[in-house]
This record gives sequence, structure tokens and C-alpha cells, in this order.
Amino acid sequence: MARTLPSFLLSEIASLVKGRLVGDSELVINSLHTLESAKPGQLSFLANAKYVTSLSLTKASAVLVAENNLVNVPCAAVVVDDPYLAFAQLSKFFDWRVKASFGIASSAHISTSAQVHEQASIAPGVVLGDETIVEAGVYIGPNAVVGNRCIVAKDARIEAGAILYDDVHIGQRSLIHSGAVLGADGFGFAPTKSAWVKIFQLGGVRVGQDVEIGAGTTVDRGALDHTYIKDGVKLDNQIQVAHNVVIGEQTAIAGCTAIAGSTKIGRRCTIAGLSGIVGHLTIADNTHVTAMSLISKSVSQPGQVLSSGTGQELHRSWKKNVIRFKKLDSMAKRITALENKVDNFSSEG
Amino acid sequence: MARTLPSFLLSEIASLVKGRLVGDSELVINSLHTLESAKPGQLSFLANAKYVTSLSLTKASAVLVAENNLVNVPCAAVVVDDPYLAFAQLSKFFDWRVKASFGIASSAHISTSAQVHEQASIAPGVVLGDETIVEAGVYIGPNAVVGNRCIVAKDARIEAGAILYDDVHIGQRSLIHSGAVLGADGFGFAPTKSAWVKIFQLGGVRVGQDVEIGAGTTVDRGALDHTYIKDGVKLDNQIQVAHNVVIGEQTAIAGCTAIAGSTKIGRRCTIAGLSGIVGHLTIADNTHVTAMSLISKSVSQPGQVLSSGTGQELHRSWKKNVIRFKKLDSMAKRITALENKVDNFSSEG
Amino acid sequence: MARTLPSFLLSEIASLVKGRLVGDSELVINSLHTLESAKPGQLSFLANAKYVTSLSLTKASAVLVAENNLVNVPCAAVVVDDPYLAFAQLSKFFDWRVKASFGIASSAHISTSAQVHEQASIAPGVVLGDETIVEAGVYIGPNAVVGNRCIVAKDARIEAGAILYDDVHIGQRSLIHSGAVLGADGFGFAPTKSAWVKIFQLGGVRVGQDVEIGAGTTVDRGALDHTYIKDGVKLDNQIQVAHNVVIGEQTAIAGCTAIAGSTKIGRRCTIAGLSGIVGHLTIADNTHVTAMSLISKSVSQPGQVLSSGTGQELHRSWKKNVIRFKKLDSMAKRITALENKVDNFSSEG
Repeated sequence: MARTLPSFLLSEIASLVKGRLVGDSELVINSLHTLESAKPGQLSFLANAKYVTSLSLTKASAVLVAENNLVNVPCAAVVVDDPYLAFAQLSKFFDWRVKASFGIASSAHISTSAQVHEQASIAPGVVLGDETIVEAGVYIGPNAVVGNRCIVAKDARIEAGAILYDDVHIGQRSLIHSGAVLGADGFGFAPTKSAWVKIFQLGGVRVGQDVEIGAGTTVDRGALDHTYIKDGVKLDNQIQVAHNVVIGEQTAIAGCTAIAGSTKIGRRCTIAGLSGIVGHLTIADNTHVTAMSLISKSVSQPGQVLSSGTGQELHRSWKKNVIRFKKLDSMAKRITALENKVDNFSSEG
Repeated sequence: MARTLPSFLLSEIASLVKGRLVGDSELVINSLHTLESAKPGQLSFLANAKYVTSLSLTKASAVLVAENNLVNVPCAAVVVDDPYLAFAQLSKFFDWRVKASFGIASSAHISTSAQVHEQASIAPGVVLGDETIVEAGVYIGPNAVVGNRCIVAKDARIEAGAILYDDVHIGQRSLIHSGAVLGADGFGFAPTKSAWVKIFQLGGVRVGQDVEIGAGTTVDRGALDHTYIKDGVKLDNQIQVAHNVVIGEQTAIAGCTAIAGSTKIGRRCTIAGLSGIVGHLTIADNTHVTAMSLISKSVSQPGQVLSSGTGQELHRSWKKNVIRFKKLDSMAKRITALENKVDNFSSEG
Repeated sequence: MARTLPSFLLSEIASLVKGRLVGDSELVINSLHTLESAKPGQLSFLANAKYVTSLSLTKASAVLVAENNLVNVPCAAVVVDDPYLAFAQLSKFFDWRVKASFGIASSAHISTSAQVHEQASIAPGVVLGDETIVEAGVYIGPNAVVGNRCIVAKDARIEAGAILYDDVHIGQRSLIHSGAVLGADGFGFAPTKSAWVKIFQLGGVRVGQDVEIGAGTTVDRGALDHTYIKDGVKLDNQIQVAHNVVIGEQTAIAGCTAIAGSTKIGRRCTIAGLSGIVGHLTIADNTHVTAMSLISKSVSQPGQVLSSGTGQELHRSWKKNVIRFKKLDSMAKRITALENKVDNFSSEG
């Protein structure tokens, strides 16, 4: 498999990001790198003012910068409003990875009632269920499994070993990473004195367009209605989305967060890693949650930042403070008692 | 693949849940739905009194209700003691998903020493190891792997892509979801100055009857003895069960909880999501743990409810309180000092 | 598949662990077990002085003990400096599991440009990508997938269903468990008003020698440079390692911990389960983190123990204390006010 590494003239790059070129337009750029590690032939960027020293020392041939940092640039530059965004836009053009194209592998096991577009790529070991539809430009990686009556829309990508149960729809251009499981049973049981009685999970999963779902993330099927991941949502690795959750457009959630059943999360929220959101809540648009926070009440006002936890400490001091935490209620009462006594002195005084 | 959607007369439904029919016994019910979303032809239920307004407005053709809510029912009804349980019992009959039956797929790779019952269903891409026993009515989904000397008992279900290492036993009717890994090595190493020395994990995993193990959940093999998941246990997604843990009968654990090595959890416990239980503990029967709690001490008295954490807060106030948390010990001492001084005033006064 | 269970003379065992034999050198030992459960024919060990009663009651035929516990041994013994280490060293010899050897399975799908050593074992259903190199003694389990341009070095083991994306290198003797995903895209997006713009992740993953990566653990590929797991690192199950993280030699991390992007963790650290480490931090060598702690600041001094959280409590008292926690800042101010008033009394007094 021969491969040609991508390379661009600096003038082409300026044009791709609609930036203003400062320096040699004929410079050949063959890859991207950080300011600290870049070598000649590479393009870098300054996204955060605190790295301005790295900018002035960089060995890169060119950099993406905002106007106000141009003075510190020791090489060629492309001036843009948002260098981080310009870098993101360019990253796609420097992706050296050859897009695998298996055609439709002979070792894939495809139901006779499935409809697979001839321009889809189905890797070895894939299993596709009954009445499932795979549209043009779709890639389904090695050993991935797609159940019955699923839809994988145009240009979506299901990576190796990902699993879709029955009745899971994936929107256009969405990307499902390896180890993700979509459509497993929601965790629903009715208690009796002797045992838990299973509630069969009859809903499906609906994933919108331009969604990314990380490795090992699980999205359970709904109990009666579906579970919804709306357009543009980005889910990191190992996130748990329980049955009947709705995640609103453009919301981004970091790794290992868990969202309990029937909770509705608004649009453009950001939720940091290892957070937990309990069930049956409604979270307003633009809510931001800091790392390892537990959200246990609905949030009605948009744009708030929420937290919980005690913050990092040396174990030996933490241990003393935790003992006091367990006496906080009595400490508060002692303060009130003191205040009363001292007020008495004052009034007596 | 033609499919017939399930449908039942309301009289049949009343009989299935041993309920009292109020209304037209000839009503045809073709599916279940929530009070809010149900349409004519559908059956709903009232499990929680706070949704009684939804009950009075429902478009469902019939509902499952307790006697005391019958007055608010705008349609036909089936009166039962526990509507949620009745709903759970019925959900099975409305499962529209066709049970896949692959027979024994020609692309499955089955060891010549494995014993597979002729009424088992083994999907394409399955790999079954040496001396492994698969009983009648078992389903093993596409690309699942079962190691050597395993037992998968009658009517158990291993979903697509689940992995069982060697010496893992699954009891009757148990359900193992996709992405679950049973029998990987427990995390055991002896420290030396230069490196960690691996302790080979020689035990297996024993999963009882009527157990459900969620997507992406990992249950490690024991170091010497086995790891045990007892009858009727329900484990949600992405739970980590370390080596030599024992989880008692009917205990239910929510997603992303981690249980460290050799801990023994009692029967009928419920543990909410994202909780952690440290190693070598014993947790009494009927213990309940709230979300994102860390359990670090054994619990000897049954029936307790345990918690940790600080609870949800606005970030700006949380930040101030966290600073104070780190001074709690000195705050407590200052209160004591104040009390002493004030007592002196009082005695002097 | 016939198998011979391992068995050793006690004299052989003493020699394997370089210990001093006390008792019958001809004793036949056929397996290892705990002090409590061992039967005649088995060898046990005392690693922790608190189990000395179990030692004196054990039914084992022989035990590994330190010199000072020899007085309590009721059977034969092998005296060693570190019985736990000796047990670890022996565990390997008592591993009854037959090492699967598939040769190179005919159902594996191997790129014509991949180089697979003839002494590697490639199981059924494996897919190997272009230009990938598999060295001697490597085992790749059923349905595992290895992408393009990967290297799996001598004697490494990739368990069933594990997934390696493109450009992932695994060092000699390293062990990757089932459900692990290495090289999925790091979570990188540039925000715009309307959507997130994907940053293509152009780096790879570099895993050193003698590394163990647990079931369901995910290690993302780097954005520009690689993500590094250094020699001798041990990662438990369901750990999330984000893009461009570096984990230093011999560091051990317990289950369900998440490490955010670009954080550098030192050597010989131990991080307990369910902990979170936020991005762009540097953590010194020999740092120890207790369970479910959030590390949000860099640690420059080696050898510290860090914690966060409030510790386990009965729910009813916890609830009261949590209410007070949210008033901590005002409590602190009230204490200061009281101190001022009381000081005034004193000076007036």
C-alpha cells in the first residue's frame, strides 16, 4: 500500500483557512505540530497566549496566529481570527491515515433482507441484521455488529467492534468508535419481595447527524419511547447514557460521565469527565458542569456552572477535615449558640 | 422476514396480570406507552401518584391502575395492586423484536471438544473454546467469544461481542450484554523495588441464575478462588467487579460503579451509579448506597442508607466553600477556643 | 485436549523462590490457595500479619512465610523474605490454563502487506491491517482487530475482541485485555457558534514493554504527538486515558480512573480507583492518590499522598452536613466575627 503524505503550499493553507499570509507563499508544509516540537516543514499555531514564549522559540516553518501575536512570530505566518479553529479545519487535510475501503467483504455476514448501498464499505467479520439499511459512503469496520431494522445513514462510520442492537438509527456523518454499544437494554426492573421482574425495553436509539460517540460509550435503548442523541452531540469515551435520556444539540460530554434514566440535557452544554447526573432531571441549555460533580437537581436557568466535591488535598490534612465534615451540623449549631451568648454579653455589657 | 406485531384483548391482559377489568373487554391493545405519549390502541400505567394529571389526560385506550386511582381514569382500566409490576410482567409480551435464531452458524469457530446443544443458537463469528458446554435454548450473539472450559446454562443469552475468558460459568436464563468482559485477569501484582510482579489469576467466574450483566461491565476472574455473582443479581452498564468479589442474591447495582477486590456485598442491596466500594469490605444485606458515594468501611448493620460527597452547587459558591473545607479542622478548633473563652466570661460574669 | 495439572515437589518450590525449606522436601504440591480454604496438597502463604490465626489453622500442606512467623506454622514451610512476592512468582507455574495456540487461523483476515512471524498465534476472526508487524511469540485472540501500520512486539498478547486502531505500537511481553480500545480518536474539537469542528487526531499510541492494560480500558491516540504508556505500567479495567497523556514507568492505576488530555504522570505512582485527573497537569514521581479523588492541580513534590471527597456516612447525617457545607463560607465569616467580638470583650474586660 503506497501512500503519499499530504503537503501544501503556505498560500494554499492561507486560502483553506481564509487567512492573511505573511512570508513566503511557496513554503511547503507537510505536517502539523506543536510549537515546542515542530520542525522545519511543519506548521504550528498559537491558541493560548500563555504559550507566547514557545511561539518566539518555535522551529516551525510557519504558524497560525491572531493579529496581536504577529509581533512574536519568528517565521512565516497565516493570520486568522481564531488560530485554534483554523488548526482544527486544517487537521483534516493532514490526516495521513488511509481510509480503509473493503468494498463489501466476502466474510461479512449480511442478512438477505438488509439493504447495503454499493458505495458502502463493509469490513471482514461484520454482521448485519434483517431489514437494516446502510447508505452510501458508510464505513463499517472489522467485526462490528449491526442488529435488525437499523439505519446507518450516508457517510456515517462505525468503527471496528462497535455493536448496535436492533432498531438503532445513526445519522449522516456520525462516527461511532470501537467498543461503543448502542441499544443494549435499559436498566429497568420492577421489585417484588423475592426478585426483580425485568421490564423489556421496547424503544430504540436515535442518533442524529454529525454526532461522535467515543470508545466504550454505552447508550441504552428506551423502555417505551427512544433514547435520543441529537445533532452535533460529542460524547467522549466510556460515557453511560441510560434509557430514555435526551441529549440536546451540540452538547459535549467528557469521558466516564454517567447519565441516569429519562434525564433531559439541553443544548450546547459541556459536562466534564467523571460527572454523574441522576435520573428524571431536566438540565437547561448552556449548563456547564465541572469534573466529577454530581448533579442531583434539575437546572432551569440556562448558562450556569455547577460543581460538587471537596477539591484536591494532602491526605493527612484531608483526613482531619473529613472528620470535621461529619460534625458540620453540630459545628453550625455551636456557632449559633456562641453568637447568642456573645449577643447576650453585648446587650448586658 | 415478516413479523406480526403482538396484540391482545384487554380481557387477555387482565388475565395475564390477574387484574380486574373495568370497561370493554374486547378492546384490542397492540402496544404499551407512557401516559403522555400513548395513542388509541395502546395500554399505559400509573406507577407514581405524581403523574395523576397525566392519567386524566391520557389518550391511551386502557391503563393499569391501583384501586385508589380508578376515579381519575378516562378510559378502560385493569385494576391491580402494583401497576408498575403489572407493566413489567406485560412488557415481555409486547417485545416486538424477533428473537434471532441462527441455528449453529457455519462461520462460528467451535472447538471439537466443545459440547453444544442442538437447540442452542450460535451466531456468525462466534468462537467457542475447548471443553466448553452450551446448553439448550442458549443464544450466543455475533462475534461473541467464549473461552475454554466454560459453561453456558439453559436459556442463557450472550449478546453480540461479549467476551468470556476461560473457566466462566453462566447460570440459567442469565443475560450478558455486548461489550461485557467476564474472566479477564484480576489486578494483582506484588511490588518489588524495580517492577511489579504479576500474580497469575487462577480462579474463575461464577455467575448465578437470572442474572443480568450490562454492556461494558467487567467481572474479573479470581486470584485463587472464584469471583461470584449470585442468583438474581442485576448489574447495569460499565460496572467494574474486581477479583474475588462476591455479590449477594438480588442485589442491583447501577452504572459505572466500581467494586474493588475481595469485597463481599450482601443480598438485596441497591447501589446507585458511579459509586465506589473499596477492597476487602463486607457490606450487610439490604444496604443502600446513594449516587457517587465512596464506601470505605465495612457495614455490619443491615438496612442502612449510606452517602458521601458535597452535593450540587453553583460553581462560584462551591469554590468559596471548598476553600473553607480545607480549613475545617482549624475552624473546629477556633470554635472550641471561642467556647472556652465565652465560658470563662460567663463564669467570671 | 488432554491437560496435565502442574505439580511440584516442595524442594522444587523452595528452589524456585530461593527459600529455605522446613519440613518434608518430597511433599507434592499441586496448587495454590488461601490459608482459609487450602486443602492437603496445596501451598498457601502469609502476606499480612493480621491473618496469623488463619496460618495456625490452615489445612495447607505447606506455606510460604517470613522467618518471624515460622513459629505459627502447623505444616511444612518455605521461608522467604517476602512471602507475597514468592507467591506471585510461583503463581505463574500453577497457571492451569492451556495457552491457546491457533497457529495462524484460516479465518483470520490478514492484509497482504502485514508481516506476521511464523511463531505468532493468530486466532479465528482476527483482522490485521496493512503494513502491520506481528513478532514472534505474539498471541492475538479471537475477533481482535489490529489496524494499519501497528507493531505488536515479541511475546505480547492481545486478548479476544481487543481493538487497536492504526499506528499503535505494543512493546514486548505486554498484555492487552479484551474490550480494551487503543488509538481511538482523542476528544478534540474547536468550538464555533454553531457547532464543534473536529480536530483530526494525527498522533498514535506507544505502549512500552511489560505493560498490562485491563478489560475495557481506552487509550486514545494523540492529536499531534503520541499518547505514551511507558514500560512496566499496569492499568486496571475501564480506565480512560485521553490523548497525549504520558504515564511514567511502573505506575499502577486502579479501575475506572479517568485521565484527561496532555497530563503527564510520573513514575511509580499509584492511583486508586474511580479517581479523576484533569488535563494539562504534571504529576511528580511516586505520587499516591486515594480512591475517588479528583486531582485538579499539578503535583511537583514527589512522594505525596493526595485525596478528596467527604468519606462514607449515614445518609441522614450526611444530608444535614451537606446543607452546612453549602454555608461553610458564611460559617467561617461568623467565626471570625465572633472572634473579633470576644477579643473586644477581653480587651475591654
